[in-house]
Amino acid sequence: MKKLNYGMVGGGPGGFIGDAHRRAINLDGQAQLVAGCFSRTPEKCRQTGAELGIDFSRCYASFEEMAKAEAGKLDFVVVVTPNVSHYPVCKAFLEAGINVSCDKPLCLTVEQAEDLVRLAREKDLLFMVTYTYMGHVTAKHIRRYIQAGKLGKIRTVMAEYPQGWLAYEGEWGGKQGEWRCDPKQSGGVNCLGDLGTHVENAVSTMTGLKIRRVLAKLDTIVPGRVLDDNDAVLVEFEGGATGVYWTSQVAIGRDNDLAVRIYGENGSIEWKQTECEKVLMVSRDGTLIERHRGNGGIEPEAAKYGRLPSGHSEGWLESMGNLYRSFFECIRAKASGCFAPDMIDFPTVEDGAEGVRFVHACLKSSESGNIWVDL
Amino acid sequence: MKKLNYGMVGGGPGGFIGDAHRRAINLDGQAQLVAGCFSRTPEKCRQTGAELGIDFSRCYASFEEMAKAEAGKLDFVVVVTPNVSHYPVCKAFLEAGINVSCDKPLCLTVEQAEDLVRLAREKDLLFMVTYTYMGHVTAKHIRRYIQAGKLGKIRTVMAEYPQGWLAYEGEWGGKQGEWRCDPKQSGGVNCLGDLGTHVENAVSTMTGLKIRRVLAKLDTIVPGRVLDDNDAVLVEFEGGATGVYWTSQVAIGRDNDLAVRIYGENGSIEWKQTECEKVLMVSRDGTLIERHRGNGGIEPEAAKYGRLPSGHSEGWLESMGNLYRSFFECIRAKASGCFAPDMIDFPTVEDGAEGVRFVHACLKSSESGNIWVDL
Amino acid sequence: MKKLNYGMVGGGPGGFIGDAHRRAINLDGQAQLVAGCFSRTPEKCRQTGAELGIDFSRCYASFEEMAKAEAGKLDFVVVVTPNVSHYPVCKAFLEAGINVSCDKPLCLTVEQAEDLVRLAREKDLLFMVTYTYMGHVTAKHIRRYIQAGKLGKIRTVMAEYPQGWLAYEGEWGGKQGEWRCDPKQSGGVNCLGDLGTHVENAVSTMTGLKIRRVLAKLDTIVPGRVLDDNDAVLVEFEGGATGVYWTSQVAIGRDNDLAVRIYGENGSIEWKQTECEKVLMVSRDGTLIERHRGNGGIEPEAAKYGRLPSGHSEGWLESMGNLYRSFFECIRAKASGCFAPDMIDFPTVEDGAEGVRFVHACLKSSESGNIWVDL
Amino acid sequence: MKKLNYGMVGGGPGGFIGDAHRRAINLDGQAQLVAGCFSRTPEKCRQTGAELGIDFSRCYASFEEMAKAEAGKLDFVVVVTPNVSHYPVCKAFLEAGINVSCDKPLCLTVEQAEDLVRLAREKDLLFMVTYTYMGHVTAKHIRRYIQAGKLGKIRTVMAEYPQGWLAYEGEWGGKQGEWRCDPKQSGGVNCLGDLGTHVENAVSTMTGLKIRRVLAKLDTIVPGRVLDDNDAVLVEFEGGATGVYWTSQVAIGRDNDLAVRIYGENGSIEWKQTECEKVLMVSRDGTLIERHRGNGGIEPEAAKYGRLPSGHSEGWLESMGNLYRSFFECIRAKASGCFAPDMIDFPTVEDGAEGVRFVHACLKSSESGNIWVDL
Repeated sequence: MKKLNYGMVGGGPGGFIGDAHRRAINLDGQAQLVAGCFSRTPEKCRQTGAELGIDFSRCYASFEEMAKAEAGKLDFVVVVTPNVSHYPVCKAFLEAGINVSCDKPLCLTVEQAEDLVRLAREKDLLFMVTYTYMGHVTAKHIRRYIQAGKLGKIRTVMAEYPQGWLAYEGEWGGKQGEWRCDPKQSGGVNCLGDLGTHVENAVSTMTGLKIRRVLAKLDTIVPGRVLDDNDAVLVEFEGGATGVYWTSQVAIGRDNDLAVRIYGENGSIEWKQTECEKVLMVSRDGTLIERHRGNGGIEPEAAKYGRLPSGHSEGWLESMGNLYRSFFECIRAKASGCFAPDMIDFPTVEDGAEGVRFVHACLKSSESGNIWVDL
Repeated sequence: MKKLNYGMVGGGPGGFIGDAHRRAINLDGQAQLVAGCFSRTPEKCRQTGAELGIDFSRCYASFEEMAKAEAGKLDFVVVVTPNVSHYPVCKAFLEAGINVSCDKPLCLTVEQAEDLVRLAREKDLLFMVTYTYMGHVTAKHIRRYIQAGKLGKIRTVMAEYPQGWLAYEGEWGGKQGEWRCDPKQSGGVNCLGDLGTHVENAVSTMTGLKIRRVLAKLDTIVPGRVLDDNDAVLVEFEGGATGVYWTSQVAIGRDNDLAVRIYGENGSIEWKQTECEKVLMVSRDGTLIERHRGNGGIEPEAAKYGRLPSGHSEGWLESMGNLYRSFFECIRAKASGCFAPDMIDFPTVEDGAEGVRFVHACLKSSESGNIWVDL
Repeated sequence: MKKLNYGMVGGGPGGFIGDAHRRAINLDGQAQLVAGCFSRTPEKCRQTGAELGIDFSRCYASFEEMAKAEAGKLDFVVVVTPNVSHYPVCKAFLEAGINVSCDKPLCLTVEQAEDLVRLAREKDLLFMVTYTYMGHVTAKHIRRYIQAGKLGKIRTVMAEYPQGWLAYEGEWGGKQGEWRCDPKQSGGVNCLGDLGTHVENAVSTMTGLKIRRVLAKLDTIVPGRVLDDNDAVLVEFEGGATGVYWTSQVAIGRDNDLAVRIYGENGSIEWKQTECEKVLMVSRDGTLIERHRGNGGIEPEAAKYGRLPSGHSEGWLESMGNLYRSFFECIRAKASGCFAPDMIDFPTVEDGAEGVRFVHACLKSSESGNIWVDL
Repeated sequence: MKKLNYGMVGGGPGGFIGDAHRRAINLDGQAQLVAGCFSRTPEKCRQTGAELGIDFSRCYASFEEMAKAEAGKLDFVVVVTPNVSHYPVCKAFLEAGINVSCDKPLCLTVEQAEDLVRLAREKDLLFMVTYTYMGHVTAKHIRRYIQAGKLGKIRTVMAEYPQGWLAYEGEWGGKQGEWRCDPKQSGGVNCLGDLGTHVENAVSTMTGLKIRRVLAKLDTIVPGRVLDDNDAVLVEFEGGATGVYWTSQVAIGRDNDLAVRIYGENGSIEWKQTECEKVLMVSRDGTLIERHRGNGGIEPEAAKYGRLPSGHSEGWLESMGNLYRSFFECIRAKASGCFAPDMIDFPTVEDGAEGVRFVHACLKSSESGNIWVDL
């Protein structure tokens, strides 16, 4: 199978997420990195390019230049810049006719989001937003299980994503923390943009529920900070289900503890991304069943993504890799003319746009004294 | 040591909570049941009395009669009737000069609660409200630890109490469920009165925080029901800390999963009552330490309540027994003239009144479209 | 229901186990302590008697005197002396025609054990050996489940009981540790007698398997110690199943971590006494089901012992109380002439004797260079 | 950085382990597969080669041919054939002067093992045996922590590896199960060779202890089977520490539950490979500390292998990848003349040979009636 060729914008020295995307893509050996604009500093860009074995001629000092030069040469581009640049970079590559994989959140404003949705449709391009956690086999299992109606009508959802890395006054969690807490680079929210969008996406992906309105309380706890670092959101979904979302960066001892608990009329499901190899399935009579990836009882459309036998842990990289697996399958299908929309098993630009709408409705609610705001 | 004599109102055939109080009191063998009005049906009352070895002459068909007849003869009375009767029963015994132990919630209205607070003070009587969970050694440990300032300023608290026993349409969870879901007997709330008060009390007991205002969303999920069965409450405390409380009776698979997570500037504490022998203590640097009742590191003022070596589980009855242990100590101290208010290590009528105020503020918030209501 | 009258030998000041028996008996309020020989020191005996409200005339300085004086007056006696005295004390009360509840291990030698078995039969008396852990609802559930053949033929059993309290050179774990490590008072073994007998009893109670032979390795790890503090035993059962038992007092961090894992041809069961409210039931296809005491799926003959709803933890005292519940039922049935042997749902003197045989076979194996020794 | 070139023997269609090695190697993108003898059937070999993008001319029908043809062209070869072929294949590539990475167990006989050790030394080649689990950051942490003396003298070790996939009479667990249970292909042991070697290696890697002698009981539980499927081994180490190892393929519900518990004079460590992101560290006073990969408190020489922030799970592939990371570093160091033996941070041919010696000592012990056999 011929390898796909891809480029990357962002992912230079010191960054975590670019490296992670590269490793996840490497997992299956289906694509190779051939071009990049890894940093706005030309030397840094070339340094990373050299380390990654990229031809000097395909290391670009600006993404605009890269988009133009690589049009027709790349199967897709990976966008892993800080949030503030997602919009212009994605736009440039879409306009150059190149499929896009962009890290979340999609962008800063609803207008930007809708523009990217429109552009992707017009150009008939694939656009993935890498909400990584939803790639895990157990997350896919929950989605399929609920889609099949096995939990009955969903009644309420409790979801959260606590972290503790920004709990300390006078400390900023390094470079990552600095730009996240800077309004100019983060677009008006910190915690909600980084973690709340994961929660929103996890719930909507797993349950298929669509938010009708939100009542949000965004708090800034650590003295000296400008943006939110601890948020609570009450949610009403279309159809009547309810939810409570909590995200925090001051929960000392918690790392990336995204957790979703879903209560339906025929049972419950509880899932933690830090223990993503298992899922608790509660049947209608209250029996607690622990299902493991790789064992029986996992929905086939999810189980097929597993690479290892049960008991040999898959983790975050495999989750990311699973997003790319479907993305690659769709790219190849498009190339060979056999693509159909229901082949898409990854978060799309529409999902990304929903996340941006969620953020802005919450922001409006919180600024208005915690009132209900429609999405 | 001479045994204390006590009477009981409620606790007749088929009930759970009266039996539980009796067993918990039996644990230490410090008190004996000598009188009762176990049921409003005279035969049932006498039947229970006979089973418990109570003298026929001290089995009463009405609590009013009992309060009068037993004045001066009882060290305390235990009130375990349905919520709707708590107020008149407690009032009658206070007026008869008898110390009271009443199950939670204290009563139905704020006026009743304040009347009981006033009366207990006037009569200089001890009044315990049995929020059982707070008797556990680990709960007491958390309270003392935070009181000593070891967690620093509390920033946010996540607390919840999900159950699943009322999840099913057309089923009412037996007699218990029926009266809880009946507005006449429950006083306007179901889930919030039963579970929400536990959450409110657990947080205020452990943290010492006082609620300033609440924003509540009380939902009735199961078709055919009148009162709430799933509630979310946003909380602001005096001093600026925040909280989110969730209680539910439709969380299939959950039994009595009261859980409190407390995040302070110097660390975190996470506690589940279903695993009440342990507590997760997170230090400022994020180190996760699991402390067990009976082992080192438990605050001495809490550890002293333990009856068994670590690894030999204590449970719910011991928690209840611990409340009574302090209650008995205070009763004996009063009798011998050496009582001091700081000896009280059990939930008082004031705590019970705070729970009633919490319920009514939430009810008002929810009925007014989820607005903030001061407590 | 008339209360049973009981006496106690042992259980004086500072001891743990006498107090525990008293509390467990108090739980259901079915029996009252009326006589005792709590200590060989007369003053201490009377002091404890006074604290417990025992009539001065029924506090005895010697158990022989007590046995004679109380013949015909007690429904049963509780024996909670150090192991070395179990035999003479139990013998004296059996000879006085009094039912016996003795703490484990039953006694020091196989000859003593067989003598007690014989005497109990001759006198037609009830004789309980309080292997407390087997009183728990989940332990009873496992026993009934396997008895009903639901696990198929048992293939192998892994059982262990690690503790850490004797891990430290130069420290002896207080009074308890001192007599346990003293050959004169412990009868040739320390760890194996204290913990190994629990493991042996737990496995045989749960599985119904009878040991054919053992190969044991008793080690003395901590310098300065004479008796074993860490033991491994290979076991072969009649019928071909196998087992491995491990007990230790040097496993720092472990308290009373008795755990049994049972693998049958139709599934597995895993149980930890420190989490005795739940049990992992694995079905033939590998599905992991967590069953909780108080919920569906617990064998009815076990579930009936529960006192509290699921989620309200029962612990070690309730386990002990459950042993006494069946013991009392049998005593009352004997008194009323309706006793039948299959009513016995507690560990008997025969079970205690099996424990002593196990210990001595292991001792012989270990002293002979770890060879197989028949039981 | 120039990519290393590697070949593979084994890893054809349907196999799991070849694919796993390729993915793990892909993780860091440091090496590329350029040649292979993926199957003894030429078509299958070419089919896999084609799928992997290997040049037709470098797909070989026999490993002997490949070893000769590729001498001087490969940086290393990966050997993932069934156990029975490990020896001849490794030998051929060593003789061709090519570094070897061979899956475990190393080979079938002690003579073969010693021959490979000798040959690797003579040829001055690197030889890794992929005991994958030891690549995990937490496993490396434990090794470094103990090496630094922080646990004091090791006293006893409990280690186990239960699986359930071969529990069923008449079912053979597919192709994998068939050859493992066939004496001709497995070399006299099944369970012990597959799982026991992992246990032996995990304990010796983590603790640095060297086995003095073993007493083993290899059982064949499932009717119709010839080789062992459930094994218990008593172990004595040089220096006096003891251990118990248990491995099983009939433990229904268990997947790859390798677990090691290490008890030292200054604390304990407990580790499960299925939860390999964390490790329980017990300090001398019994405090239970849960350490997570990626957080503070992990030994630096182990922590450096982490690729993701804590809370983003790394799993089995990363473990394997970590072995290769050190292997690659050593290969490059050798190429550049700066290699030193203490750079080796992967299991070597000597470790593999120790595993074979362990298996054969156990086999001899078991066949001789469970006597002690020196290693």
